[in-house]
Amino acid sequence: MKHSKDFNVQNERNLTMLVDFYELTMGNGYLHNNVQDKIAYFDMFFRRVPDGGGYCIMAGVQQLIEYLSNLKFSDDDISYLKSKNIFSDDFMDYLKDFKFSCDVWAVPEGYPVFPGEPLVIVKGPVMQAQFVETMILLTINHQTLIATKASRICRAAKGRPVMEFGSRRAQGYDGAIYGARAAVIGGCVGTACTIAEEMFGIPALGTMAHSWVQLFDNEYDSFKAWSETYPDNCVLLIDTYNVLLSGVPNAIKVFNEVLKPMGKRPKAVRIDSGDITYLTKKVRIMLDEAGYEDVKITISNSLDEYIIRGVLESGAQIDSFGVGERLITARSEPVFGGVYKLVAVENDGEIIPKIKISENEEKITNPAFKKLYRIFDKTSHKAIADLITLHNEEIDETKPLEIFNSIYTWKKKKIKNFYIKDLMVKIFENGQPIYESPSVMDIKAFSAKEVSKLWSEVLRFENPHAYYVDLSSDLWNLKQGLLNYYSETFEQ
Amino acid sequence: MKHSKDFNVQNERNLTMLVDFYELTMGNGYLHNNVQDKIAYFDMFFRRVPDGGGYCIMAGVQQLIEYLSNLKFSDDDISYLKSKNIFSDDFMDYLKDFKFSCDVWAVPEGYPVFPGEPLVIVKGPVMQAQFVETMILLTINHQTLIATKASRICRAAKGRPVMEFGSRRAQGYDGAIYGARAAVIGGCVGTACTIAEEMFGIPALGTMAHSWVQLFDNEYDSFKAWSETYPDNCVLLIDTYNVLLSGVPNAIKVFNEVLKPMGKRPKAVRIDSGDITYLTKKVRIMLDEAGYEDVKITISNSLDEYIIRGVLESGAQIDSFGVGERLITARSEPVFGGVYKLVAVENDGEIIPKIKISENEEKITNPAFKKLYRIFDKTSHKAIADLITLHNEEIDETKPLEIFNSIYTWKKKKIKNFYIKDLMVKIFENGQPIYESPSVMDIKAFSAKEVSKLWSEVLRFENPHAYYVDLSSDLWNLKQGLLNYYSETFEQ
Repeated sequence: MKHSKDFNVQNERNLTMLVDFYELTMGNGYLHNNVQDKIAYFDMFFRRVPDGGGYCIMAGVQQLIEYLSNLKFSDDDISYLKSKNIFSDDFMDYLKDFKFSCDVWAVPEGYPVFPGEPLVIVKGPVMQAQFVETMILLTINHQTLIATKASRICRAAKGRPVMEFGSRRAQGYDGAIYGARAAVIGGCVGTACTIAEEMFGIPALGTMAHSWVQLFDNEYDSFKAWSETYPDNCVLLIDTYNVLLSGVPNAIKVFNEVLKPMGKRPKAVRIDSGDITYLTKKVRIMLDEAGYEDVKITISNSLDEYIIRGVLESGAQIDSFGVGERLITARSEPVFGGVYKLVAVENDGEIIPKIKISENEEKITNPAFKKLYRIFDKTSHKAIADLITLHNEEIDETKPLEIFNSIYTWKKKKIKNFYIKDLMVKIFENGQPIYESPSVMDIKAFSAKEVSKLWSEVLRFENPHAYYVDLSSDLWNLKQGLLNYYSETFEQ
Repeated sequence: MKHSKDFNVQNERNLTMLVDFYELTMGNGYLHNNVQDKIAYFDMFFRRVPDGGGYCIMAGVQQLIEYLSNLKFSDDDISYLKSKNIFSDDFMDYLKDFKFSCDVWAVPEGYPVFPGEPLVIVKGPVMQAQFVETMILLTINHQTLIATKASRICRAAKGRPVMEFGSRRAQGYDGAIYGARAAVIGGCVGTACTIAEEMFGIPALGTMAHSWVQLFDNEYDSFKAWSETYPDNCVLLIDTYNVLLSGVPNAIKVFNEVLKPMGKRPKAVRIDSGDITYLTKKVRIMLDEAGYEDVKITISNSLDEYIIRGVLESGAQIDSFGVGERLITARSEPVFGGVYKLVAVENDGEIIPKIKISENEEKITNPAFKKLYRIFDKTSHKAIADLITLHNEEIDETKPLEIFNSIYTWKKKKIKNFYIKDLMVKIFENGQPIYESPSVMDIKAFSAKEVSKLWSEVLRFENPHAYYVDLSSDLWNLKQGLLNYYSETFEQ
């Protein structure tokens, strides 16, 4: 099962024109200069992990595939572009007949990924490979950002279920929908976003708002009405007026007077405001004393990984969390800075590596058409390092492998007893999709497994160990050669 | 002209199911308890201005209207909901025949708005008025957030044009599209997001990426090819290799060798990395000395209002800005915390005010069906204060008006020589849209005018004067009465 049903919001829209305008001015320029069919290689990668974390969670590949499978300019698009009066008729004809023909590789969703690694590689006519930049970045940046944040928040909850509750504070409709998808990939057990269940088969749930309680003449009546409506699944929101003086007493009264005679057990109470640690300790005692030791306490109130860690450390009695705005916007660091850079072009079939120099050293790119390997320890199955190589390098798993830091090259490590995994899969061949995405729930399970292969030092919230992402000797030498070439050029 | 063409991405999608699941469980509960048609009043409002600013810019009403005009559950939606096995057949039938019949009021887009004010009011059967909560919040929260951030950034640029460049770092596709719309409402002159021009008639533009420069054998060739393609609108990106040693010299060479013989003037150079202040000063001198005093310098590199203010104060030579990730995600504070609260219900035609108490004082709501007035000085036309009243209060403009702080009630102010404006307009009557949204460019112009009516003390970035938002005596008394009632109830 890919989706819970054959239903896809994105496919109902044509997002071909969701493109930075410069992709179009460049496209027109390629054609004007007759270089539109030159084969180019682009890498999508990022430079740092948000929140100072140790890893990110790759997400968004499924939506990237949908976008690339549906590239098409409508007649309306063409006539709008013509009205700009800067594009040639040849370019308009090219767009009218646009047919995606690139090869694309991507790291599958759910993998932990690290700075500097290619996450997506596009090879094809520069006109096309350039055009898809905006949507590749937008799609992967967004979902990877949210999956990464969800992974942090769920780890802070230490096994307690975390629900994604943030639709109302998301940055736009897709922010809510695909944000819910990414949150589940990162570890959430479900979402409040109903359409996300319909689209992706991820569990949606929810109970009542304060307005339910307010609508009735008093809190007791509102709880009574709710428990009569949902005797099998009764969760009450107990903080509309006063948690300890009103909410809990009324809840217990309703549990006793309505549910008990029916032979039903209530499920949970929810608190959405106030001092969580203090209130949950008190509520736990009150529920236990009334014979409701099995009734859960669920919390939602501007939570994130730091607050969750804090209240759990201070002894709060919490069974599950609903996390809203700080997850769905990745509030503490709401930008995932993935970039898309030209790394090579073909001249008469020969691959010529390209580099982007910058006065900001961290903005310098890794040139060439490349491969990404993950190296695992054969005994512990823990991930030791990632290695970026030229596309045609093979690694001999039977011999010790020496890796070294790209900046401090004397920092070396000889690895024995290992096996490797080629992390990228081909998702498009000659413009045709050739990869079937797993279901979101399968990606979620896969991701949990892959994260468990990281050493706990990499998982720390503060000052995590920087996972090794090294270049092969051949790639390192190639890069140094290009840097020296440009450095000498400017010295003249 | 509403849009540049009859083209609307949102209408191609059915977003009815983009709803927090608890709206559905409550809906089913209303029906089960036969209160579904009880008339309820809900307010959407927010509690604080992001970034410690003095005002927000209202945005998103047009998309709210589109959503409310298109509410409809498909057969697929119904069968998905049935599969959850918690909803009654009656509720499924209700949704199948769902017909929106509420009255809705909103503050028009572009107005500066302040904490505690109703921005949207919905009156209607509680079943419906509750259901639309998620999308009202999502729509207004997102666009108001971005319009507010854009307003700050554009003010920092002190009249220099600011372009929205952030699509690739937006939180989802709608984050890019409606974010671009909101950014223009807040003051940006245009966007790089092509589809946003097609949808909203806001100017889209762009030039080249580093990849254009890298594709050619050298920077000079790439500039030459570009200037030959766009002799009338030549903007060159000069930081691919080295701004001062390579970018500017090559640009000047191309200006002289390609454009000058054609009788064309270049438009601008763009810098996307490095020390902006230092580089732009040097570049300005180099361009001037080469006779290109009219060529503009445009900057884009992780900018926001603080960085723009800083580089301008340090003498950077910049003519325009492209602002990306920090605008499109409102990076410094990416959540707009609008909420939607029940404020009254009707019992036999009588309006009964409702209040949400909270142990967090700022979470206590303003009860009752209300009106929002802005009070202007008759001489300066500056906005003096906003006044929230009961829905049936009239203000006599011919008599002095005394307003007072809702917490420190001894802080009073007597206003003379004023006129008032009823800020909210009715946008739906009995479920039918009755308000025609202005074009985005008209909203942008309107907003600039309304912001200019605020005292400069309110516009400050740091510690702005808190604009007065007061309650009328009648509303204040009503609220105190309810607070006392609940306080006494819990003391018993």
